[in-house]
Amino acid sequence: MAAQVAKRVIVVAGLGNGTGTGASTARVFAKQGYSVALIARGSDIVDKIAQEINTGGGHAERFPIASYSHDDITSAWSAIHAKFPKPEYTIRVALFNAGHGVWKKFLDITPQDVQDCLQTSVAAAFSFARGAILAFKDNDLELPNGKRGTLIFTGATASARGNVTTSAFAAGKFGLRALSQSLAKEFGKENIHVAHSIIDGAIATQRQKDIHDAEWAANDDVRLSPDSIAHSYVYLVNQDRSAWTWELDLRPAHEKW
Amino acid sequence: MAAQVAKRVIVVAGLGNGTGTGASTARVFAKQGYSVALIARGSDIVDKIAQEINTGGGHAERFPIASYSHDDITSAWSAIHAKFPKPEYTIRVALFNAGHGVWKKFLDITPQDVQDCLQTSVAAAFSFARGAILAFKDNDLELPNGKRGTLIFTGATASARGNVTTSAFAAGKFGLRALSQSLAKEFGKENIHVAHSIIDGAIATQRQKDIHDAEWAANDDVRLSPDSIAHSYVYLVNQDRSAWTWELDLRPAHEKW
Amino acid sequence: MAAQVAKRVIVVAGLGNGTGTGASTARVFAKQGYSVALIARGSDIVDKIAQEINTGGGHAERFPIASYSHDDITSAWSAIHAKFPKPEYTIRVALFNAGHGVWKKFLDITPQDVQDCLQTSVAAAFSFARGAILAFKDNDLELPNGKRGTLIFTGATASARGNVTTSAFAAGKFGLRALSQSLAKEFGKENIHVAHSIIDGAIATQRQKDIHDAEWAANDDVRLSPDSIAHSYVYLVNQDRSAWTWELDLRPAHEKW
Amino acid sequence: MAAQVAKRVIVVAGLGNGTGTGASTARVFAKQGYSVALIARGSDIVDKIAQEINTGGGHAERFPIASYSHDDITSAWSAIHAKFPKPEYTIRVALFNAGHGVWKKFLDITPQDVQDCLQTSVAAAFSFARGAILAFKDNDLELPNGKRGTLIFTGATASARGNVTTSAFAAGKFGLRALSQSLAKEFGKENIHVAHSIIDGAIATQRQKDIHDAEWAANDDVRLSPDSIAHSYVYLVNQDRSAWTWELDLRPAHEKW
Repeated sequence: MAAQVAKRVIVVAGLGNGTGTGASTARVFAKQGYSVALIARGSDIVDKIAQEINTGGGHAERFPIASYSHDDITSAWSAIHAKFPKPEYTIRVALFNAGHGVWKKFLDITPQDVQDCLQTSVAAAFSFARGAILAFKDNDLELPNGKRGTLIFTGATASARGNVTTSAFAAGKFGLRALSQSLAKEFGKENIHVAHSIIDGAIATQRQKDIHDAEWAANDDVRLSPDSIAHSYVYLVNQDRSAWTWELDLRPAHEKW
Repeated sequence: MAAQVAKRVIVVAGLGNGTGTGASTARVFAKQGYSVALIARGSDIVDKIAQEINTGGGHAERFPIASYSHDDITSAWSAIHAKFPKPEYTIRVALFNAGHGVWKKFLDITPQDVQDCLQTSVAAAFSFARGAILAFKDNDLELPNGKRGTLIFTGATASARGNVTTSAFAAGKFGLRALSQSLAKEFGKENIHVAHSIIDGAIATQRQKDIHDAEWAANDDVRLSPDSIAHSYVYLVNQDRSAWTWELDLRPAHEKW
Repeated sequence: MAAQVAKRVIVVAGLGNGTGTGASTARVFAKQGYSVALIARGSDIVDKIAQEINTGGGHAERFPIASYSHDDITSAWSAIHAKFPKPEYTIRVALFNAGHGVWKKFLDITPQDVQDCLQTSVAAAFSFARGAILAFKDNDLELPNGKRGTLIFTGATASARGNVTTSAFAAGKFGLRALSQSLAKEFGKENIHVAHSIIDGAIATQRQKDIHDAEWAANDDVRLSPDSIAHSYVYLVNQDRSAWTWELDLRPAHEKW
Repeated sequence: MAAQVAKRVIVVAGLGNGTGTGASTARVFAKQGYSVALIARGSDIVDKIAQEINTGGGHAERFPIASYSHDDITSAWSAIHAKFPKPEYTIRVALFNAGHGVWKKFLDITPQDVQDCLQTSVAAAFSFARGAILAFKDNDLELPNGKRGTLIFTGATASARGNVTTSAFAAGKFGLRALSQSLAKEFGKENIHVAHSIIDGAIATQRQKDIHDAEWAANDDVRLSPDSIAHSYVYLVNQDRSAWTWELDLRPAHEKW
């Protein structure tokens, strides 16, 4: 009975500058009635998005972390459980949207670049996924979908294709894809849905808008809208257990691939 | 103005025995307000599904064909245009769901088996896709999605993985996947969305239910529900042009892969 | 005992204009001591390559066919068995190098183009593979490699990637890849090695030389040498049963991919 | 002139317990006339293989490292350059064969396991590859192959497929594959050949022989011979620039895949 009235919680890790996939996903799920737990490095962006959601009638809580280390992520999960206790709440969705981008010729890549890519895109994903799987394992099956929870990882073109200037970035993103596929196979049988997106194009974040021009920013045919990605994540979460997706590619209509 | 009030049409080719993906897609889109054009070999199944939709308050028209030859498929498209003229109607969605299944050891496969797989899974798909692309090219952009139309192909595990006993079936399904990817790249820039599903498991059709038992048929964790696949197709159609998907894998929660 | 002194035979199907992969493979294996059975459409090119090999001290026999139909290919295999009887000969290698190339925008592709691609690249490959598998099944294990025989299929960039203007060509080449993977899995356990190459670039055939200039033709960095491809096929044949390859990609050093 | 008589050097990183791919590759290339630079953790195994090669008439030098850190690997490269100076020697081949294997259920994987996989399979590969690329860049083109050098990475089934119990191992191996593909694309145009193997089966190392029985160890159909893998690496190195391979899968004849 309690389960039916429990408020669903989504945990989002990785908010960038607050204008991309992570922030849109937080907003969109808040509008769908989820409480939102926000994890990101630095409290500024966490505060900004939380305030925006809360003043808009939603419910968001802040879990800023100093780094994407295992300990910091694990502490954040503990704090999330404390803030969203059962049976009032059930953590149903977790999005790992963090990552470290490096686009350099191979000989310009530093050992630190490699470490940053591996730590933020892969090791942090392991730590985050552990928190999510542990949170989901004891959940009842949500109806009508028949899931305990959904764990989504945000990938990129570089998740499936190494290229000139992406060796470090792709190494991290390939690693993340491996993790997501392994988890999908291991935890499907426990009705935990693990999915991976391949964002195959530029997203209309503020950063990208600054690089391009206003025409580009306004042209839905050439860049991804963060809200559209978020709506795809809602769809993945709502897929029922009889037919769910591991990997979803997303690109703008006019993207060349 | 006319475009806004035009009734949307979905064309579905391939209905099997009326209990699988094609029939479910027809029913689900009918409930979403689409008029439905049904193409299949033999008029019995076309009649059955059309009647079911029409008596349920939907609108379906029958386009039975004698074979999946180019001429028969092309004639069906002509008849569809005649029955659903502009500006009253706009053909917005086309699903190619036909295919020929052969599961045999290689040395048991006959030349006719090979021809059947190639004709029904690939050549017919070219003919059907031609009709769909020509129908979509002159459409206005539907709002808010920004598409002229969506063409979906139903694939299978064998679309991406050849295996013992699937050489003929996989040859057809690989070919279909090639077509869908080529079309996605060629027509994306004209705002025509081409997508491909990989149905990675057994679907709860009547045929499969007869093979398995009632427990299997009732267990959402182990086989795909045709309606769930159909809902995924609705999702693909509704994806907006800023973030759309070429390939979607779908499998039951407990599927081993 | 007889098996040890039997002369090895390679069967090559598909000679193009005699300046590409098929002809080079025939020549290179002839130099390695194989007798060569040449299958191709039209007797001119078969005569030319056979004469070239025979006057060079090798041994080639001619099996021209009128078409890549199942019957014609099956007849060719019968004639090959008659010409190369056991125990004097053992058919050890078979290369399917035929294919039909179409590079057109989708709406310019005719139903005949589709049929040609499917017939020559896929259906003919099934017929040819049947002959090869049947020939190999009764062979003893060749030592030291531990194989009954090796069946190789020549693929292309379009074997794994559909693209604008390649829908028909890729449909055939994807289908061929599916066949080769299925066969590899089915017949590995009988010590029949099935391999597939992905030729990911332009080959320095006469036809390509005519399109490009002399500088291109002479530049090993930018196009594939047919002899180098042939040497790769020798390598595949010589791989022992403890570590063999299904798929080998081959491209020039400076190819962009 | 000097370049023609320079002795070729192969650098091998990762020797396991001296009975697998790395050690076999060292021995096989030594027999082909290469001088061998051996990098591995701990001096015991380095000593053992070096002594074996040197007493067999070959030439091997020892470069044991304390860890696969960037600094240790970079120091090893410096020592290698000092020991094999130009123009007497030219470093032509580099094999990265190190890796950290973890096969555990996801919830049993520790943060240290993840770090070990990422450090040894990916970060160390970046450091090693940097040394190799820098060594190759100033080489002349070797004739007749037309290459400055060849860099090979040893992959596994888990390089392309995540699975239950392989999440950490696959994360590292996927990352390595991304690196190799990126490098192949970046440095092909400088005639540096980068290749990646997918070892899709168990290798007959001493460790595996201990797990299995004598019958298994003796059966070439069911496990990979390290020497056969090494011969494949010789083949990759000898491929000429007009037709070279990025990725080679290797498996035993009877492997199920």
